[in-house]
Order: sequence, then structure tokens, then C-alpha cells
Amino acid sequence: MMHMAQDQDPEENIDPWGSLQIEDYADTMDQFGIDPMEKTGEKLPQQHRYLRRGIVYGHRDFGRVVDAINNDGPFAMMTGLMPSGEFHFGHKLVADQMIFYQELGAELFIAVADVEAYVTRDMDTDEMRELAIDQYLTNYIALGLDPENVHFYFQSEGSPHYNAMSKYFSKHVTQNEVEAVYGDISPAKTVSALTQAADILQPQFAEHGGPKPVVVPVGTDQDPHIRLTRDIASRFKDQDFIKPAATYHKFMRGLQGGKMSSSKPNSYIALTDPVDEALTKIDRAKTGGRDTLEEHREKGADIEEDVVFELLAFHLVDDDDRLRDIHDQYSSGEMLSGELKQIAKDELRNFLEQHQEKRADAKDRVDAFLS
Amino acid sequence: MMHMAQDQDPEENIDPWGSLQIEDYADTMDQFGIDPMEKTGEKLPQQHRYLRRGIVYGHRDFGRVVDAINNDGPFAMMTGLMPSGEFHFGHKLVADQMIFYQELGAELFIAVADVEAYVTRDMDTDEMRELAIDQYLTNYIALGLDPENVHFYFQSEGSPHYNAMSKYFSKHVTQNEVEAVYGDISPAKTVSALTQAADILQPQFAEHGGPKPVVVPVGTDQDPHIRLTRDIASRFKDQDFIKPAATYHKFMRGLQGGKMSSSKPNSYIALTDPVDEALTKIDRAKTGGRDTLEEHREKGADIEEDVVFELLAFHLVDDDDRLRDIHDQYSSGEMLSGELKQIAKDELRNFLEQHQEKRADAKDRVDAFLS
Repeated sequence: MMHMAQDQDPEENIDPWGSLQIEDYADTMDQFGIDPMEKTGEKLPQQHRYLRRGIVYGHRDFGRVVDAINNDGPFAMMTGLMPSGEFHFGHKLVADQMIFYQELGAELFIAVADVEAYVTRDMDTDEMRELAIDQYLTNYIALGLDPENVHFYFQSEGSPHYNAMSKYFSKHVTQNEVEAVYGDISPAKTVSALTQAADILQPQFAEHGGPKPVVVPVGTDQDPHIRLTRDIASRFKDQDFIKPAATYHKFMRGLQGGKMSSSKPNSYIALTDPVDEALTKIDRAKTGGRDTLEEHREKGADIEEDVVFELLAFHLVDDDDRLRDIHDQYSSGEMLSGELKQIAKDELRNFLEQHQEKRADAKDRVDAFLS
Repeated sequence: MMHMAQDQDPEENIDPWGSLQIEDYADTMDQFGIDPMEKTGEKLPQQHRYLRRGIVYGHRDFGRVVDAINNDGPFAMMTGLMPSGEFHFGHKLVADQMIFYQELGAELFIAVADVEAYVTRDMDTDEMRELAIDQYLTNYIALGLDPENVHFYFQSEGSPHYNAMSKYFSKHVTQNEVEAVYGDISPAKTVSALTQAADILQPQFAEHGGPKPVVVPVGTDQDPHIRLTRDIASRFKDQDFIKPAATYHKFMRGLQGGKMSSSKPNSYIALTDPVDEALTKIDRAKTGGRDTLEEHREKGADIEEDVVFELLAFHLVDDDDRLRDIHDQYSSGEMLSGELKQIAKDELRNFLEQHQEKRADAKDRVDAFLS
């Protein structure tokens, strides 16, 4: 499963990111027929660290997207966001992939899932709009997204054709299929599933140039939507669709272990957190350090339990050699959790200071983009 | 139930339209809580023959609409059409009501239910568009509809807000409620029910001036949609809605008895039928004439079975005194079915010739309206 930087000896490909719980993902892949990313991802002209480190670990039909990239053919990346709070490092995982694909030539489609949020989570539409722009879009641009060639839209404001298609798709789906996606069914969930299918297939509508490879980067939990949309794509006969491709990524855990969640501010670091506050969150984060210095020196850190190392691997250390050194020193007991946290804090301070400066410029670009 | 012209003695109010099977409708009204039209309709400043003759026999909340009319307040009429073929006298029943309400000051909303037709009946969207314009809209205008102040739209081309609302409404409806409307359930039926609710409530959206009385003239079979939409209107909290009113009309039977249906050309007379062809359809229509002249003279016609008389009552004879004379002569046996048919043919020829001339002008107005 692991795929390290290509200049390294395969023999040395130990798995320094055991914490990513790859075994669980392997089961899921077998069960649903998700293909491993490794060999297909290798053919890309660039290797993002998410690919090198198996964070993006699986795919469906991604080969078509790779072929388009390598042959300068048209392709698109589509993603959706449900603005539930501050933009944090969990969200950055998808933002980084947007920017990666944009640099590789993708046309980007970003749907603000306000209809879904309203009907399934009772969220306030005005508040969502504010968050989507001030938190998500502004941070995307500060991270490097070029708003040119990006279709950033609210589901509630889609074009008539997009809306009609989301309704036409109802003809090609059964009650049982919608129920399988959510585990239960309601009119609201039916509408959500159909709207999401329209989001994913919209890059292939005639007004966007017709059929083309489209990649949707998702967590494994979103795979039922991908499968439903692929089924709709092949059943819909009034226009041709290429079945959308997907890549599957692992999720970073919350800072206290467990799930990272917008509703638990101590579980995440927001990209707009004041730097000092963010550093304090690192101080309080769960590590794999042992109970005593003696035990730590003897056994080394339990890296699987260490969310600070996870933060370095996902976001703060891009250089593989450096990450490997940190891994080796920490797992051997040579490095203490306090020292690991200091590395994380230095990197985080550096990142946040630069990012928050970039946000100022990004705000101007957002205003220009929206008008 | 019968309501005759107001200058007649109530004592004389026999029921000359027994053929309208009023008893069946009375049961339905009791069952679903539809109020009789008679007393509420009387308060209108004008009495259409459909009201005078109990063809529009029941209502929900129509009093609010009457009040708006009598106080020059804003109100709207909303209706939908599913373009399944030629525009015939069955469709004219709703068209006449549109024009009646427009003359009384209504803003009109006419939805072409192309999304519903596509997802539930597999109809071709291009063909529907052609029929909706060339058959429905053109005939509406030839019948007297003034395209000013009319919102004639296709469900597939509704505004973003209309589409968003059709999806937001999903939050306020259960699976069981959708199933109750149709007798069974599917994603396509869920989408149809929600889209129809958006059609009915659209006249009250902010962009159309907010809450106002709205009347939807329907056949009794459409009442489940009205009830569902009224429930949604009262459950939706992000904007105020006045529960939409409805009136309920009887259907004219097909020319051979049984149901008038677009898929059986001999069951209807289209407003674009060549006159000779239309007259032949009258010749072949089912009557209430007796088997022998002797029996007919003795018993009189069985008016309940006579679809030609029904055509006169619904469409071809507007004058109540004249219709009453015809009724009395025919039911006494003084008039033969051939003579009744001759009256119908004369009136029909006259109507169709004039109407088809008006269609030529109407086509120009349609072109202007659409551009």
C-alpha cells in the first residue's frame, strides 16, 4: 500500500504512517472494489505527498484521469463542501488536492452543499453562505487556488439545467438504492442524493463541454454516493456520461484522538486560529509518548497513537527524508513527545503566519471573483 | 349542489345536469372535507357557467380568494399542464377558468409539468415543448387569455429560487405522505410531488410579491397534491405562506362514454380538429336516445348517458334558459338525439371556425410572448 518517493530503494519502504490505520481501509477496499492507488498514481507527472504517503490510498477509474493529464486532454475535479464551521486542517486535505489537480490542468467544480445542509441538518442558509465564502473560498485561495477556471457555486443557485438534471436523475434510481446510500430514507435524503449526483455529473453537461474524465476526491464514507452516481451515469440515456472517477483518502484524527469535528473546537486547528491558540492546542494534543522517560527511551513512541506526528505527515512536513528522520528518531525513543511537539509548533507557527497574511490578499480576490 | 343563474326562481332549480354524476362527487367531498362551492361562489361579482351549473362544485379556502377579488386585493391563479397530445375540450375546462380569473384580476401562473412528465411518464422533452406552445399556449390565447401578467414556464427552466424551494420542501414531508399522494412511492414521485408543491406556492415567493391568496382549479383526483402542499405551506417557517385555495371541477366524459383521453382520439374533439372531422365525431358520439322512436317519445332521453348534452352544458351553450329548454325538450322525448346532435354540430362548427381563425392571430402573440 505504501508508496514512497521514487528515488528511494523499495526495500526501505517501511510504513512510517502506521497511524493511518491502513488495515481498516484495506478491508473497505476489498469489500467495495476500490482499487489501490499506488500503481495508478505513480503514472502522474507529479506526486503529491498525499499520494507518496498513501493518504490518498484508493481509487475508482482514476486511470482515465491520469491518461487525460498525461495527454493534455480535458478533465475536471469536482468536490462539495458543507460549511459547518471554521475551515481546519481536515478540510485542507481536500483543498490541497484541488490545487494539485488545478496545477495539472483540471477545470474545478466546487459545490457548496447548502441544499443538503438545509434539508438534512437544518442549517441556516445565510450563515452557510457567510462560512462558505469567508472560511472555505478565502482559505482555498490563500492556499493557492487560482479562482480562474473554478466553478464555485451554491446548490441553491445552480443553473436551470443543473436543477432539471438533478430531478431527471430520479427516474434512474430506486427507493432501495437511495436507502442504501444513507441507511435510511426520506424525501430530504432522496433530494440530497439526486442533487449530489447532479453536482458530480455537472462537469460533463453540454454547457461545460460534454463528457470528460472527472475525479472526485472523497473519504471512504462517501463511496456510496460515488457508486450511485456512477450507476446513474450509465443508466441516463439522453446524454452520454463517462462514469466519474473517485480517489479515496484517509482522515486525520482529532487532536485529542477520535474524530476531528467542526463542533469540537479542541479537536481541530482552524487556519484562522490565532497562532498562540493554535500552539496551545498542540501542547494539549494526544501523543504516543510513554508514561515515563525511561519507558519512552526503551520502547520508543507509539506512533500509531500520535496525532501530532499525523499532523506533520499530513500537512506540516512535505519533505519525505525529513519526515522519515523524525519518524525514526521518535519511534526509537531518541526523540521525546515534547521535542516532536516543538517541531510541530515551529512548523505550524510558520505556516499559520504566512497563511494568515495570504488571507488578506485572498479576500480581495474573493470579492473580485464573486462580482 | 346546483346553482342556477340568480334571476331564476329557486323553486325551478331542478338539476338538468344529472349526467354530471353529482352523487359521486358528494361522497368525495364528505370524505376529504371539500366544501360545496355554491354559497362561496355566489359572492363572486361574475358567475361563470361552470359555477352556475355546479361543474365547479367544491373548494377549499376559496373564500379568501373571493374576498381578495371583492376588495381588489392581489391574488393569483395557478395551474399546471402536462402536454400529452392535442388540446381538446377537456383541457378547455381549465383554460376557461384561467381566463375567468384573469378577468377578475388574477396574476396567472401556468407551469408546464415537463419534469413530472419526464420522470413519471417517460415523455420526450422536445415534443412536450412543442405541444405546450403550439397546442396549449396558443389555444389559451385564442380562447381569450391575455399573455400580459401570465407566468408561463417549464418546470425544467424554473428560477434558482423556485428549484431551491422545491428541494427545501423535502424537509417538511415524510415518505408516507408522498406515498399517500400517489399510492406508491419512488424517487421520481418524490421529486414530482415536491416540484408541484413549488409550482403551487411560487406565486407567494418574495419575488412575486409574497403571501397572497392563490386558487388552483383541479379535478378531485388532484386533491392529494393540494392537501400535501397546504401542509407544506403551514410547516415551512422560513417564509410565510397562505395555504393555497383550490376549486374542484367535474370532468366531461369521452365522446363514447368512459374517460376522455389524449391517447384515444375518438374520445375527444381537439380545438384544432378540422371542422368536418369534429362534426363526424358528434355523429358517432354516445347519446341518451332510446332504441326506438316510440320508446324515445314515451320515456324521453336518458340525459345522464348523453355526452352530447354534456358537451352543450360544459362548452357550447352558455345561456342557461336555452340549455334548460333543450334539456326539457330532450328529456321529455319531444327532441330526438339527431336533433340534439344537430344543435351541437351547429354550435361546434360556429365555435371551431371562429376559434381556428383566432389561432392565427394567437400564434403571432405567442411568438411575441416567448421572445
